[in-house]
Amino acid sequence: MSLSLNQWTTRHWTLPEAVDGCVRHGLEAIGLWREKVAETGLAQSVKLVRSAGLRVSSLCRGGFLTAGGLPGEDGRTAFAQALEENRRAIDEAAELEAACLVLVVGGLPGVKPGEPLPAAFSRDLAGARERVAEALAELAPYAGERGVKLALEPLHPIYCPDRAVISTLGQALELSLPYPVEQVGVVVDTFHVWWDPRLFEDIARAGSRIAGYQVCDYLHPLPEDVLLGRGMMGDGVIGFRPITAAVQAAGYTGDVEVEIFNADVWAADPDEVVATMKARYEEVVLA
Amino acid sequence: MSLSLNQWTTRHWTLPEAVDGCVRHGLEAIGLWREKVAETGLAQSVKLVRSAGLRVSSLCRGGFLTAGGLPGEDGRTAFAQALEENRRAIDEAAELEAACLVLVVGGLPGVKPGEPLPAAFSRDLAGARERVAEALAELAPYAGERGVKLALEPLHPIYCPDRAVISTLGQALELSLPYPVEQVGVVVDTFHVWWDPRLFEDIARAGSRIAGYQVCDYLHPLPEDVLLGRGMMGDGVIGFRPITAAVQAAGYTGDVEVEIFNADVWAADPDEVVATMKARYEEVVLA
Repeated sequence: MSLSLNQWTTRHWTLPEAVDGCVRHGLEAIGLWREKVAETGLAQSVKLVRSAGLRVSSLCRGGFLTAGGLPGEDGRTAFAQALEENRRAIDEAAELEAACLVLVVGGLPGVKPGEPLPAAFSRDLAGARERVAEALAELAPYAGERGVKLALEPLHPIYCPDRAVISTLGQALELSLPYPVEQVGVVVDTFHVWWDPRLFEDIARAGSRIAGYQVCDYLHPLPEDVLLGRGMMGDGVIGFRPITAAVQAAGYTGDVEVEIFNADVWAADPDEVVATMKARYEEVVLA
Repeated sequence: MSLSLNQWTTRHWTLPEAVDGCVRHGLEAIGLWREKVAETGLAQSVKLVRSAGLRVSSLCRGGFLTAGGLPGEDGRTAFAQALEENRRAIDEAAELEAACLVLVVGGLPGVKPGEPLPAAFSRDLAGARERVAEALAELAPYAGERGVKLALEPLHPIYCPDRAVISTLGQALELSLPYPVEQVGVVVDTFHVWWDPRLFEDIARAGSRIAGYQVCDYLHPLPEDVLLGRGMMGDGVIGFRPITAAVQAAGYTGDVEVEIFNADVWAADPDEVVATMKARYEEVVLA
């Protein structure tokens, strides 16, 4: 396993700056975001990461597949649009030769990420979960034909209303099982899964389905904007070593991405953030 | 199933006022809090609920059993103190003839509810969960001798750091299995479990272990103090009917408590709150 910088950790760096930063700090891999790739341009992004000799440990992110749960024409249109957007993301992941395309599957139909509840939305959680399975049946073959692995990311249950109706690793794993390992895997992100009483059993069960291991700490108490509750490893409540050991024991040999959404981290000098990240990775993450 | 007022929903009412309120609104049961019982006095509280003809659907709450996970003498002292406090709670539940004593088991050792992380605490989540099992082995027979049922309450994973290392119904159920159904059961609280992909399977599996069914909605976004994210049924994201139907199908015939921690609800006229609660129970909770 080798350390990778998810570029949202240093979000004020452009893609070229993040690539330079990885090289300067001796990292072998980078996790990219579609927004940043679009800003630099796909072809130029591909050129930069290749000439720097970096692996692309993941592309973030596809998903938001649940709006099809809205009634009638609205639902059908939203479902078709979501599939189209995800096909574009798959194409980009193929160009970038990303190890996987991370899927954040979306929350309750009609609820937008980070926004208050709208007047019309669906409380049919079971139905929303079925929409994800349906979308996966459309997207997995498309990804497979392009050599892209879809990586289902379970999100902490606090994000169930608006970001991901996949809430546990076990649930992500069940959704992946109908497809070849090369087409659909799962992401283990410590922030999202640290609390799960079935975590170690499900990591072992996931085995070669583990498409990515992302680390950051879980801050307590969470800030008012709960999206920004991700902290530098060691600053929160997670005991990382047993989780890392379990992921290794399951056979995972890929990169370990550090993905931190945090106002203080973003305000700091990105070079210092990367230096701290490397030190904390050795001190608290490695088993 | 019959509607019960958990008295924290009308927290500005004293116990005598809450008992009067239940009678005035035609409710047959009340869920009591130890703080409120202490304020009125145990003997007087017993007298009031009996003469009003109310069932006590639960006593809230025992628990906070994990501090024993602190190292050395601190841990041993904390564990002994927690057991002693819980024995007192069991005695009170026996006097009140409460249907169960709700246990909120506590978070990571050394982390206090609602407070920032202290300098010294334990990140050993697995160990904290073992401490709960150990405490239960001490308390279950004591409760059994007094005819009290302990009710393990899984809390939403957002409370795992500071309030409850029991995060799912399945996990609570596993912990209850070594004991007779009369001694240890589980609580299904919609706020805490609505997101769980295994919820319906675990409710069915729980069967007669279900010692209490508590309802309130899950607000989105949560307020800054996440403890106050509990809303009146219909004001949040939960689809109640399938959960109520599952609890009924599992054989539960006890009372349905409405327990809401919410600044706006507390600021409102308690009589209006109870009236709204009755209406919403019919409209959105009943299967």
